Amino acid sequence: MLKKLAHIGIAVKDLERSLALYRDVLGMHHEGTSAEPDRQLEAAMLDCGGAHIELLRATSPDSVIARFIEKRGEGIHHVCFEVDDIRATLAALKAAGLQLVDEQPRPGVGGWLVAFVHPRSAGGVLLEVAERPKKQPSTGSD
Amino acid sequence: MLKKLAHIGIAVKDLERSLALYRDVLGMHHEGTSAEPDRQLEAAMLDCGGAHIELLRATSPDSVIARFIEKRGEGIHHVCFEVDDIRATLAALKAAGLQLVDEQPRPGVGGWLVAFVHPRSAGGVLLEVAERPKKQPSTGSD
Repeated sequence: MLKKLAHIGIAVKDLERSLALYRDVLGMHHEGTSAEPDRQLEAAMLDCGGAHIELLRATSPDSVIARFIEKRGEGIHHVCFEVDDIRATLAALKAAGLQLVDEQPRPGVGGWLVAFVHPRSAGGVLLEVAERPKKQPSTGSD
Repeated sequence: MLKKLAHIGIAVKDLERSLALYRDVLGMHHEGTSAEPDRQLEAAMLDCGGAHIELLRATSPDSVIARFIEKRGEGIHHVCFEVDDIRATLAALKAAGLQLVDEQPRPGVGGWLVAFVHPRSAGGVLLEVAERPKKQPSTGSD
């Protein structure tokens, strides 16, 4: 059902300090940093031999990342897997008894559709599933 | 410096129940389960499109996994990256100011050499580095 690992999300307090570790010391490639105002955070994506690390910094004390750090400290926040059909995946996970945070997929970064499964029903792991954006059909004009 | 993701280690209470989730519901391939008496745990390795999940169950209350679960509950325990030269990596990480749990590499599963970096110096992430076993040189008799 899960196709492959998309990324590992890590909650950090200071993005520049974390980039100094992951990019400068550990040698990962920093692909870019994007603001996510809807989720009140900014996200830096790094590549390490095809695996991705997503550093997440809260931009508001109400952000889920701020609340996570307040409760558990900095560290691994979630793990995200790519799926082919996120709606079919969510239906199957629900049928298997898992508790969904998002009953319907919602827009993520870069046009992906994403949804979270509650860690309560997944052995303490906050699991994200994500469907890659479909290529736009050609208009015939290009 | 880090070559690629080796696995994500997840602390679990009940290996069969966790396999029912990762193998049967999420569809990962269970490559095998090994006992690690030195670390007082058993480890089940699963593959998901080339990424690996390592489910870790304590076999003694003194195991680091038992202590982790007692303190933080079940969930993601560490993330492991493959490196080409673990001794050079540890020297570089130490020079960069990171605090090593293992100053020298120690034997891991399947002949790998492994070492951990303390989460205190890595933004709350327990980081493992691992060097793949070298192929034995041919004896000339085969």
